[in-house]
Amino acid sequence: MVSVGVVGGTGYTGAELLRLLVSHPDASVVTITSRAEAGRRVDDLFPNLRSYCDLSFSDPDSEALAGCDVVFFATPHNVAMHSVPALLARGTRVIDLSADFRIRDAQLWSRWYGELHACPEVLGQAVYGLPERFREQIRHARLVACPGCYPTAIQLGFLPLLQGGLVDAQRLIANAASGVSGAGRQASVANLLSEVSDSFKAYGVAGHRHLPEIEQGLADAAGGPVAVTFVPHLVPMVRGIHATLYGTLSEQGRGVDMQSVFERYFAEEPFVDVLPAGQYPQTRAVRGSNRCQLAVTVPQGRDVVVVTAVEDNLVKGAAGQAIQNMNLMFGLAETAGLDRPALLP
Amino acid sequence: MVSVGVVGGTGYTGAELLRLLVSHPDASVVTITSRAEAGRRVDDLFPNLRSYCDLSFSDPDSEALAGCDVVFFATPHNVAMHSVPALLARGTRVIDLSADFRIRDAQLWSRWYGELHACPEVLGQAVYGLPERFREQIRHARLVACPGCYPTAIQLGFLPLLQGGLVDAQRLIANAASGVSGAGRQASVANLLSEVSDSFKAYGVAGHRHLPEIEQGLADAAGGPVAVTFVPHLVPMVRGIHATLYGTLSEQGRGVDMQSVFERYFAEEPFVDVLPAGQYPQTRAVRGSNRCQLAVTVPQGRDVVVVTAVEDNLVKGAAGQAIQNMNLMFGLAETAGLDRPALLP
Amino acid sequence: MVSVGVVGGTGYTGAELLRLLVSHPDASVVTITSRAEAGRRVDDLFPNLRSYCDLSFSDPDSEALAGCDVVFFATPHNVAMHSVPALLARGTRVIDLSADFRIRDAQLWSRWYGELHACPEVLGQAVYGLPERFREQIRHARLVACPGCYPTAIQLGFLPLLQGGLVDAQRLIANAASGVSGAGRQASVANLLSEVSDSFKAYGVAGHRHLPEIEQGLADAAGGPVAVTFVPHLVPMVRGIHATLYGTLSEQGRGVDMQSVFERYFAEEPFVDVLPAGQYPQTRAVRGSNRCQLAVTVPQGRDVVVVTAVEDNLVKGAAGQAIQNMNLMFGLAETAGLDRPALLP
Amino acid sequence: MVSVGVVGGTGYTGAELLRLLVSHPDASVVTITSRAEAGRRVDDLFPNLRSYCDLSFSDPDSEALAGCDVVFFATPHNVAMHSVPALLARGTRVIDLSADFRIRDAQLWSRWYGELHACPEVLGQAVYGLPERFREQIRHARLVACPGCYPTAIQLGFLPLLQGGLVDAQRLIANAASGVSGAGRQASVANLLSEVSDSFKAYGVAGHRHLPEIEQGLADAAGGPVAVTFVPHLVPMVRGIHATLYGTLSEQGRGVDMQSVFERYFAEEPFVDVLPAGQYPQTRAVRGSNRCQLAVTVPQGRDVVVVTAVEDNLVKGAAGQAIQNMNLMFGLAETAGLDRPALLP
Repeated sequence: MVSVGVVGGTGYTGAELLRLLVSHPDASVVTITSRAEAGRRVDDLFPNLRSYCDLSFSDPDSEALAGCDVVFFATPHNVAMHSVPALLARGTRVIDLSADFRIRDAQLWSRWYGELHACPEVLGQAVYGLPERFREQIRHARLVACPGCYPTAIQLGFLPLLQGGLVDAQRLIANAASGVSGAGRQASVANLLSEVSDSFKAYGVAGHRHLPEIEQGLADAAGGPVAVTFVPHLVPMVRGIHATLYGTLSEQGRGVDMQSVFERYFAEEPFVDVLPAGQYPQTRAVRGSNRCQLAVTVPQGRDVVVVTAVEDNLVKGAAGQAIQNMNLMFGLAETAGLDRPALLP
Repeated sequence: MVSVGVVGGTGYTGAELLRLLVSHPDASVVTITSRAEAGRRVDDLFPNLRSYCDLSFSDPDSEALAGCDVVFFATPHNVAMHSVPALLARGTRVIDLSADFRIRDAQLWSRWYGELHACPEVLGQAVYGLPERFREQIRHARLVACPGCYPTAIQLGFLPLLQGGLVDAQRLIANAASGVSGAGRQASVANLLSEVSDSFKAYGVAGHRHLPEIEQGLADAAGGPVAVTFVPHLVPMVRGIHATLYGTLSEQGRGVDMQSVFERYFAEEPFVDVLPAGQYPQTRAVRGSNRCQLAVTVPQGRDVVVVTAVEDNLVKGAAGQAIQNMNLMFGLAETAGLDRPALLP
Repeated sequence: MVSVGVVGGTGYTGAELLRLLVSHPDASVVTITSRAEAGRRVDDLFPNLRSYCDLSFSDPDSEALAGCDVVFFATPHNVAMHSVPALLARGTRVIDLSADFRIRDAQLWSRWYGELHACPEVLGQAVYGLPERFREQIRHARLVACPGCYPTAIQLGFLPLLQGGLVDAQRLIANAASGVSGAGRQASVANLLSEVSDSFKAYGVAGHRHLPEIEQGLADAAGGPVAVTFVPHLVPMVRGIHATLYGTLSEQGRGVDMQSVFERYFAEEPFVDVLPAGQYPQTRAVRGSNRCQLAVTVPQGRDVVVVTAVEDNLVKGAAGQAIQNMNLMFGLAETAGLDRPALLP
Repeated sequence: MVSVGVVGGTGYTGAELLRLLVSHPDASVVTITSRAEAGRRVDDLFPNLRSYCDLSFSDPDSEALAGCDVVFFATPHNVAMHSVPALLARGTRVIDLSADFRIRDAQLWSRWYGELHACPEVLGQAVYGLPERFREQIRHARLVACPGCYPTAIQLGFLPLLQGGLVDAQRLIANAASGVSGAGRQASVANLLSEVSDSFKAYGVAGHRHLPEIEQGLADAAGGPVAVTFVPHLVPMVRGIHATLYGTLSEQGRGVDMQSVFERYFAEEPFVDVLPAGQYPQTRAVRGSNRCQLAVTVPQGRDVVVVTAVEDNLVKGAAGQAIQNMNLMFGLAETAGLDRPALLP
């Protein structure tokens, strides 16, 4: 039994880690921290967990955390980097769901996150937790940086095209849309139901923090520089990411059977599902599941390829992918605790 | 392994039976029928089931169904009653999720459902599938009539009050609200998102078909006639039933500690959860789960007691409760396949 | 042209006052205050008002406000009562949309609002701004206390029954549901879309601040004490109040043609619309309008009468009713600026 | 007073025409037809119109329609083209909200709409009803073909870029999203709340009927062929279109101050509103209004320009634009009946 600690358990990502881990056959949460809610029962905040989780939130305590096999950080950015080095030094493995270890270049990180990185010397140890790309490295990692929710869907959708050189890497467009849970469980006016329900908008058009992470990952895959125009949108729904990806076909991309390319690329992947030709993914079909569903189309047989991809931002985009990483790190079945169909309708 | 047949698998109740049964450790769906969709893959209609369910819909075929250990009818009313007698004669056990066998009095049934009952002689064999009331009878039943979604929440909420004689049985008010999935997956204008989203309304105020079922069940519990005013409402959400129940305290009800009454009454129930005093249930906290959560309050210490109760209409209100009944009928753990926390948020 | 000042313009009630007043033929907003947003353009916060409203929020300034013909307070409770006496002394008329002047009994007010009333001597001057009850008094009022959103729908629905002595005044049940905009435009976790979307719940079951106001108004109408059990619920929609009201018929109420009673009672009312028998109101049919739509039913001809009523909580439940009051106070057509159909769908 | 007939009044576009026209100072609906609902009162179907509209639906009757000054067709495609020639011959002016007269090339029309055009000889008379492009021609038109909802937002957003030669006309991407009312008020499973709420998806990726209309309009503006990749999406909301438009800057487009380009281009337009730099449009800010709000951004100063545009699909995307056209055709103020702020929240 893998003993798990969770730092920052009062947000949606923390709640989702708990929801999934209470049914995990080989892992068990032993401590969950929150400064703000210390002493309060977890199931008082999340009544769906009544009888499944007997824990109360505790103040962050390095001893208790260091005693775990693995600690998940479900915190905002700029938190984990202050605690991770000490945990690693104690031999505790770490899975960080925040942005602190996703960008290899500490200066680039600083530019987008607005402060100096607290432990740039640790960045080199971090493995980027996208199992479809780095499965073997993850198995042996001490520190995994889980991808952001947008970057997961966008990278999965572009990977087969870029690794095959099928599109122009300089002209990638990632038009994406997220449910409101992606904005977290913080008091705000902007995400009140009365502000975002029955409406739709783009945001962060001039620049969103997930852009450097997306470009870093895709450049690795393309074997050279890429340029991505990334525009996120807010959907009046709770969970779900939908990415609509546009690529201009390269010479070698013209006339290629894209359906086959995608089916082959993901043939062995337990959590990536290429839909049959003519079907398009919808976020509700992955709600609560760790699955990414994809479709690929070349409209009117012209020179633009369109990939549409969906995931649950809290599962494959966060907590589920973190557990998939944990499963790999501890030699468990990769699908352990994650093998349930989505909730539809 | 219990072999299961499902009749009418294209509605939400059928889809939910499949979602739950593909993860059930001791049961397996072997045939699923639909006249309209015969030949179509199930996961083509319900893409959340891709890789979990390899079946296609088949035309209803009495041989295939009779070969199952149990057949679930997830059909509109007036369908099951035409097939059930033959299945019972073949020794197949039946769990009917429709209204056909819920009302013991065939004439009363006819009045509310608009036609003659096709097999009134079978009504006496049917056990009403509310385990919290009829657990022992269900274990031995050949035919279980699963309660309606509203009647489940409303009966669970009133039972402790009526069985204790704590309220006036002639003055019960059941104000309830349902998500739109309760209206089924049929083409209609009335349930288009554009018609029901961002709005709220009562319907069926003059009389709803669940009323005689509710009054039958509560009269049994009260040991005498009851009068219920039942007003259902439509909520712009997918899943969930919320019941707000009002009772006038009887002499022996005054001053009673209702919290204790409810906690004791449901102490051994795996799927009924009485919330701590001061908390009120919300439908999202039982979304996708088989749980009913309840709270009881006597506002301002006056003479009216208010019970609020929630369930997922597709789970405890339909497919989940049907599986709970199956578990009892086949000697399985009552919670088998149903023991997962709700999806929140 | 009536010159209008608005205090507290950054909430939904303030925004709705502006939306309605920019199209009012006989009134014009000349100043709008907000401490938090002083200096910011109004249409920067509310982009629907671009080109309709050229104002910026200003710091509350008693001189500017006193120069207006009328000042609307669209503030939380416990604010208006500190400024109103001075405005009245200057001859400025006041329409308060908050709770400060709704309860005649200062001690009762203190019990529910948690502090001493700042100007109990002014309470006697306040006219309760429900035109269907107090039209003539409103015409001459210097200070109007606008009813709460729940109390408006609930009083309108019960009035014909109580004034006719048709129901038992001691056994009234008001089961009501509100859209989330009723909770205001304050940063909070509780009203995030991710918390309240796709869910339904009761709240304040043990006691809600609108109860004393409801009982005060209904006791006036009944000519004696009343007892109301009031349970509010939260609907995942932006605007709308739906009240489901239950009364036990009195001797003289039995057999009465309730449809006629309601049609006669509201025959001359410009903003109350009794639906034809068999139709039930829905909140979307009054979205954005100042109308209350009502239906009355006696289910199964038993002894309980059910009234269902809808209004837009921000219009007839707040800003629209305030303008209706202003129209009366200044001798304008009662429907001026308010005579547009609701936005459906 | 312009006398108006409406053909096909039971859909959302018809209902919206009525909602707007009952408040129009210079026009009045005298007949409204529906085969399916003939004889039924309009306000029975649309209770928001009670007291505003005293009409009942009538069977289509060419005499009654020919007697109107103008007839609006709010019908599905393939209906208007069978009636329009006779109306024009009688001297009645026609505003068609369907697709029948939008495409100049009858063969192209047939390819996308699946049958032969009934009156190709009339196509040449039709003026495309986008006032921002064809205001003068509309004034004198006998037959106006109102643009589709997607084409309105997409053309308005691309026009300043294409007419200025600022982007590569061969590489246009139009990623758009619509509320569900765009799918109409027909009985269907696909648009049930339970199917589309709390979810997001693309549809018609391989080809959508609005594409040829978009390309025809943009080619006119560009003065040469264009290629648009158009992917529509479905948003769980009632009203609203959001377009996210991507263009690759041409040589002359580099370094241009796009904010100024857009502000100048639309400076005189009463219904197009360019937001200040740094603000992005949201559909709720135009809900119920005839306005299109736009923003333009060049992310990170790279070579891609992004335009985001919103409109209410039922107003500027249908009924409101039709009335704007009527106003022009009859010499009324262009904004008559349309000059109200949007409903927010």
